[in-house]
Amino acid sequence: MDPSPPPHQHASFAEGLTLECGQHLAPIDIAYRTYGSLNAARSNAVLVCHALTGDQYVAEPHPVTGKPGWWESVVGPGRPIDTDRYFVVCSNVLGGCMGSTGPLSPRDNGTPWGPDFPPVTMADMVRAQAMLIDALGIERLFCVIGGSMGGMQVLQWAASFGPRVFAAVPIAAAAHHSAQNIAFNEVSRQAIAADPDFAAGRYWATGTVPARGLAVARMMAHITYLSETALSRKFGRRLRGADAGATMFDDIFEVESYLRHQGSSFVRRFDANSYLTITRAMDWFDLAADHDGDLSRAFAGSRTRFCLVSFSSDWLFPTAQSRVVAQALNRSAANVSFVEIRSDKGHDAFLLEEPDFFTTLAGFLSGCAEHAGIK
Amino acid sequence: MDPSPPPHQHASFAEGLTLECGQHLAPIDIAYRTYGSLNAARSNAVLVCHALTGDQYVAEPHPVTGKPGWWESVVGPGRPIDTDRYFVVCSNVLGGCMGSTGPLSPRDNGTPWGPDFPPVTMADMVRAQAMLIDALGIERLFCVIGGSMGGMQVLQWAASFGPRVFAAVPIAAAAHHSAQNIAFNEVSRQAIAADPDFAAGRYWATGTVPARGLAVARMMAHITYLSETALSRKFGRRLRGADAGATMFDDIFEVESYLRHQGSSFVRRFDANSYLTITRAMDWFDLAADHDGDLSRAFAGSRTRFCLVSFSSDWLFPTAQSRVVAQALNRSAANVSFVEIRSDKGHDAFLLEEPDFFTTLAGFLSGCAEHAGIK
Repeated sequence: MDPSPPPHQHASFAEGLTLECGQHLAPIDIAYRTYGSLNAARSNAVLVCHALTGDQYVAEPHPVTGKPGWWESVVGPGRPIDTDRYFVVCSNVLGGCMGSTGPLSPRDNGTPWGPDFPPVTMADMVRAQAMLIDALGIERLFCVIGGSMGGMQVLQWAASFGPRVFAAVPIAAAAHHSAQNIAFNEVSRQAIAADPDFAAGRYWATGTVPARGLAVARMMAHITYLSETALSRKFGRRLRGADAGATMFDDIFEVESYLRHQGSSFVRRFDANSYLTITRAMDWFDLAADHDGDLSRAFAGSRTRFCLVSFSSDWLFPTAQSRVVAQALNRSAANVSFVEIRSDKGHDAFLLEEPDFFTTLAGFLSGCAEHAGIK
Repeated sequence: MDPSPPPHQHASFAEGLTLECGQHLAPIDIAYRTYGSLNAARSNAVLVCHALTGDQYVAEPHPVTGKPGWWESVVGPGRPIDTDRYFVVCSNVLGGCMGSTGPLSPRDNGTPWGPDFPPVTMADMVRAQAMLIDALGIERLFCVIGGSMGGMQVLQWAASFGPRVFAAVPIAAAAHHSAQNIAFNEVSRQAIAADPDFAAGRYWATGTVPARGLAVARMMAHITYLSETALSRKFGRRLRGADAGATMFDDIFEVESYLRHQGSSFVRRFDANSYLTITRAMDWFDLAADHDGDLSRAFAGSRTRFCLVSFSSDWLFPTAQSRVVAQALNRSAANVSFVEIRSDKGHDAFLLEEPDFFTTLAGFLSGCAEHAGIK
C-alpha cells in the first residue's frame, strides 16, 4: 500500500455491526462513491458490488494507480448503467483496504487490526452496504449488480433484503465456491503466508509488506481470470528476443513479464490481510447451506427481477454455476432471465468490451426501469 | 532434499553431451532402474518416461518417501506393461534430482551447479536417454511410453529417433505447452524465486532449501492435475470442525489441509533448481516450431505405431491437444490410434486406477508385440 493513502469519501456508523462470527465490530466506516443523481422519488439507485480486488472507484480514475475506473465501459453517461438516468452507488466492502473498515483500520490501541481482524462473511459485507444505503435515505434499490464476488453479493442482497431489491444482476457468479475455487484461493493465501515479510500478518509493525507473496497470489489468480484463448491471443508463444540459451527468470515468454507486471502493480494498491479476509469470505459463502441445503429457499417469495449473466469461456465461475442459481430461482417461482454471453475472454469478460453483454444489460435495465416508473 | 540422498543405479558418460543451448555438459550421469529381463533378441525393451516431478522408481518403493512406485498399477508382472514379457527401463531426466546430472550435481569446483546449470530441452533429455539405451546395448526400443511431460518425451523420441522406436504411447501429452500451461509454470517459478531461502538459487550454500516457495508451487500445480469433479469428490465443501469464526489459516476446508500436506511432502524429495530447469524445458518444448511450424514434418516417414491417449476431464493437457498430434500423424501417414478415455479424474488419471486405460494399453502393446515377434 501507498504510505499515504488518499482520503476516501465515507459514512461512519458508531453503533457498528455484530458479525456472523458473533464479534461486534464498532465503529464501522464504509467508503463509497456515487455517480449521477438520486431522483425525487429516490427510486433510481443502482448499487454496484465490486469483485475481490475491486473497489468503489467504478467510473473515475483510481486514486492510487491513476488507472481508469474498473467499470467505465458499463457505468457512465449513455452507458448500460446510465448515470444520466440512475444514481449509482459503490462501496468498498467491509474487510477491504480502500477506506472501509478492514484489517488496515486501527483498533482501540491505535495499531491496525491486521491478522486479528474478525472474519467477515458475504452476509456481513451486504449488511454493511445496507447500512450505507439506509444512511443515503434509500429504502429500495432499483438494482443491485456485480460480477464475480460482486455477483455473490447480489445474490446475498436478494436473499437477505429481497423486498429492498427491485432488480438483481449477478454476473459471472455462483451461489458457492467450488472445490477448485477454494483450492486456488488457499494457494493464494499460502503464498502470502509463505512470505517472511508477512510476519504473521503484523507487517505494519516492520514497515514492509509481503509484496512477493501477494504478487505470486495475484499472478496465479490472474491466470484463472482469463480463458486459454484469451491468454493465447494476448501472448501465445511469442518470444521476447530470447531463446533456449537464456538464463532462468529472463522474460522469455511475454506472458511471464505480463504476469510479473500484474503482480507488482497489485501490491501497491492492495493489503495482504484484506486479501486473506475477502478470499475467506468468498470460500465461506454458501447460500444453499444457509437455507437447509435448498438454494430455492434463499429466494422464497422473491419479487425481484433477476437477470443472470455468464460467459461461455469462464472456467472459474462457469455457466453451470449460474444455471444452478437460475434453476433455484425457477423453483422459487422468481422472475428470472438467464443469458450466457458467447465470449472467449474468460471470467474477466465482465470487465471488458463485450457488446452483447452491454446490450443485454442495457435492455434488461431499461425494461425494469419502465416497470419501476423511472424516467 | 534429504541431506544424505540414497545411492542411485546409474550410467556415466565421460564424453558428456553438447546441449541445444550450445554448452557442452560433461561428464553426464543418468540414474535409472530396470524391471524384467531383456530377451536374447534385445527386442522387448520398453522405455518409460517420467513426468515433471516423477523419477525412475516406477515399480518399487521410492527411496526417499518410502511410497509405492509411481506407476505400479501399470508396470509389473501381469500389468499392462508386463515385466514378465518386457524389459522396462526408466531413467531420471537430465536436469532432474534423483541421481541424473542436474542442478544438484557438483561442477568442477565441487560445489553444485545450482542456478548455473545450463538450460536443457526435451530433445537434450531424450538424447541423454538414448545414450543410456545405447549403453544397455539396445538398438531399437519396442516401446517408448509416458504421461504428461513423459508424453512430450515420447513425441520427441519419435521425432528424433523414429527408426529406433517400434511403438510410441504419448499419454495426456501435447506437442507444445499452451499459454495457460506456461503461465502456471511461470507462477510456480516465481513462487520459488520469491522465497528468500531460494537465495538466487544458491541455497545449498546456506544449508536451507526454499521449502515454502516450492510447496506453494507444488500446491498450485496439484490443483491443475485434478478435475473439478475429482477435487469436489475428494473434499467438496466438507468442513473440518471449524466455522466462520475460525482464525485465518486454520484448516477449514479439507482441501486446504490436503494441499498443505502435498506441498510439504514434496519439498523433501525435490530440488527447487530442478523444478525450474524442468518446467522451463516443458515450456520451451514446441515440436512444430522445430519443424518449420508443421508438426507433421516431425513424423515424416515414420514407421512407428502410435497410440495416443487422452482423458476427457484433463484440462491441463486436454484432448484437443492430443487431437492436434493425431492429426499431424495422420497427415504424415503414420500408423496412429487415438483413444480418449472417459474419466473424471483430470490430468492425474494416467497415474490412477482407470480400467479402460489399462485395457487400451494392454491391448495396444499385445498387438504390437505380436507384430514385433515378442513372445
